[in-house]
Amino acid sequence: MKVLVLGAGQLARMMALAGAPLNIAISAYDVNSDAVVHPLTQQQLGSGLANAIADADVITAEFEHIPLPILEQCQQSGKFLPGSDAIQAGGDRRLEKALLTRCGVASASYSVINNEADFKQAVSSLGLPLIFKSALAGYDGKGQWRLKEPTQAAAVWQQMADFLAADSKQAIVVEQFISFNRELSLVGVRAASGEVKVYPLTENHHVNGVLSVSLARQVNEQLQQQAEQKFAAIANGLNYVGVLAIEFFEVNGNLLVNEIAPRVHNSGHWTQQGADVCQFENHLRAVTGMPLGNTELLRPTLMINILGEDSAPAAILSLAGLHIHWYGKAKRPGRKMGHINLSANSLAELKARFAKLIDLLPAVAFPELEQMLGQISD
Amino acid sequence: MKVLVLGAGQLARMMALAGAPLNIAISAYDVNSDAVVHPLTQQQLGSGLANAIADADVITAEFEHIPLPILEQCQQSGKFLPGSDAIQAGGDRRLEKALLTRCGVASASYSVINNEADFKQAVSSLGLPLIFKSALAGYDGKGQWRLKEPTQAAAVWQQMADFLAADSKQAIVVEQFISFNRELSLVGVRAASGEVKVYPLTENHHVNGVLSVSLARQVNEQLQQQAEQKFAAIANGLNYVGVLAIEFFEVNGNLLVNEIAPRVHNSGHWTQQGADVCQFENHLRAVTGMPLGNTELLRPTLMINILGEDSAPAAILSLAGLHIHWYGKAKRPGRKMGHINLSANSLAELKARFAKLIDLLPAVAFPELEQMLGQISD
Repeated sequence: MKVLVLGAGQLARMMALAGAPLNIAISAYDVNSDAVVHPLTQQQLGSGLANAIADADVITAEFEHIPLPILEQCQQSGKFLPGSDAIQAGGDRRLEKALLTRCGVASASYSVINNEADFKQAVSSLGLPLIFKSALAGYDGKGQWRLKEPTQAAAVWQQMADFLAADSKQAIVVEQFISFNRELSLVGVRAASGEVKVYPLTENHHVNGVLSVSLARQVNEQLQQQAEQKFAAIANGLNYVGVLAIEFFEVNGNLLVNEIAPRVHNSGHWTQQGADVCQFENHLRAVTGMPLGNTELLRPTLMINILGEDSAPAAILSLAGLHIHWYGKAKRPGRKMGHINLSANSLAELKARFAKLIDLLPAVAFPELEQMLGQISD
Repeated sequence: MKVLVLGAGQLARMMALAGAPLNIAISAYDVNSDAVVHPLTQQQLGSGLANAIADADVITAEFEHIPLPILEQCQQSGKFLPGSDAIQAGGDRRLEKALLTRCGVASASYSVINNEADFKQAVSSLGLPLIFKSALAGYDGKGQWRLKEPTQAAAVWQQMADFLAADSKQAIVVEQFISFNRELSLVGVRAASGEVKVYPLTENHHVNGVLSVSLARQVNEQLQQQAEQKFAAIANGLNYVGVLAIEFFEVNGNLLVNEIAPRVHNSGHWTQQGADVCQFENHLRAVTGMPLGNTELLRPTLMINILGEDSAPAAILSLAGLHIHWYGKAKRPGRKMGHINLSANSLAELKARFAKLIDLLPAVAFPELEQMLGQISD
């Protein structure tokens, strides 16, 4: 079975590693270079999207910010899963918010801003504080503005006006600022048959807007059920096939959707060691029509992103339950270079191992881990 | 880090999959074709051993039946681990038996046969029944003869005489036939520092001389300690670096070494799901000088070889704790095409899952599984 992935980054690479044991051969289409490469070796396998589409049994994507003509070309092949609609909903906040409304899934109140009149209307109808996000291609904290005080309105609007003027396809989605208790995400998978399996809710910690740590542990049943219902509503609403990730804000026991990602997701990397079948394998199983794999938690596991570093102290490899996953990428400040998965047989053991790991990691490259450890409730 | 593997089969492939997350790039030298390939994609990366040696940081092997000039060329590079002596000891039963004697590790009494006089001497000194094995390149039940009754001696000798006449490098090692209770194997890893870590003893079931099922479970402490002592004696005796496998006969609570394999081993494939760090990763850690990984049992796991089949019923993928590992090879009768790992949280659960799996697998392709299930003691 041959699967073509749009995008040739670490998610395609980890799909290749998970697919090999299933005899699924992965090729990756680099949208920027038009090259088709093997995502592990980066050796060129061909070039041009048309050939790659013809050669593939199934096409999927590792990211959502894909030019529309490419999405349409893939969609026309009849091989594209989860399909163009789902990818677009993940790549355009206007479509995403409309999807959530259509599926009856709660999220922050919002409106769309294309000009100053929209801006003023939003401020007056939604009230402050507000958070503004670019409709297209903004994540990891980029393309975001906040407005807390009326006196800042003119300055904030000017920044957004410049941003909108630079790209006629852009818009800004403004939302009421949510004061949340925790950020959680649910990664799950839906088969073409409609069958849905989800992993346990994961607790996410961001630093400067970028995911730093995800923790998967025994979940609160009430929250898990809430999340699963929302997952099913969205996945069914899109007639989705594959792995889908939903980021939530938890507000006093209620979950509001922050955003969706129509793909395998950074907050699901822990599943490589902490779940029976990992998200990469389950995505491939779903899009190739194999039975879905068991998504149960095997053992409490946390994932730590490695940002901007291409090495880590060798001593960490001596820790039981530790696995390192490098992406084979060239070093660049802030770039996602790899991640560490740390597992244990109990939450208490995991916290003890995390403390040992923190002692071994350079604090400059891995900031705020101590605080995160302290925030893990029993 | 670049590691060159002598041999481009499934063991090199699984090393490539285990090495990628550590940023270890594996290339594989196909001894027959002289090509250097990526063991996952089989794409050619170069040709000729000299270039491959020059390009590698470390050289290792996935099999022991390697022509001596190749071993010597690798040894001279100073990059070869576990090294030529260890590979030769695994590939020549004469050296293997001498090694065991030198290390003071018990195995069946034996002698070496080069001619009819040796044969007659062995029969008279060792007594019947006897098992004869070719000194070179015989495994999976090939190149073996048995002698139970004196009346068969002439006929059996004639077969062996023909065998010896066909290859002047060959000899035959004859051993007293061991009436054993079980076949067990111990897979472990030794670092250049001398540090040793071993996995739990694995119980192996063969069908027609080929490994069919390996079971890893909580071990008998007395047996495990015995096995670990023998492992350390052999690994230290060879100044071994990497994963080493030792096959034992259990005879009334005592372990006799049957044979050693200076490499990752089929009876260690269960470690991909059943151990914290699998044998492929630990081999790479050892030969590249990284700290060894935890070898503890995570959960009871059994491995079932897939022989001569290139597909399995899709329904088995629905079973919790089941992972399939295909090797991407062309179908051929009896060929090792892949394996299934089945894990559970307890031995009782594993037996229940095994029973379900047996119901789903075609009995012709997977013979004797029912009997093996029945033989698993509580």
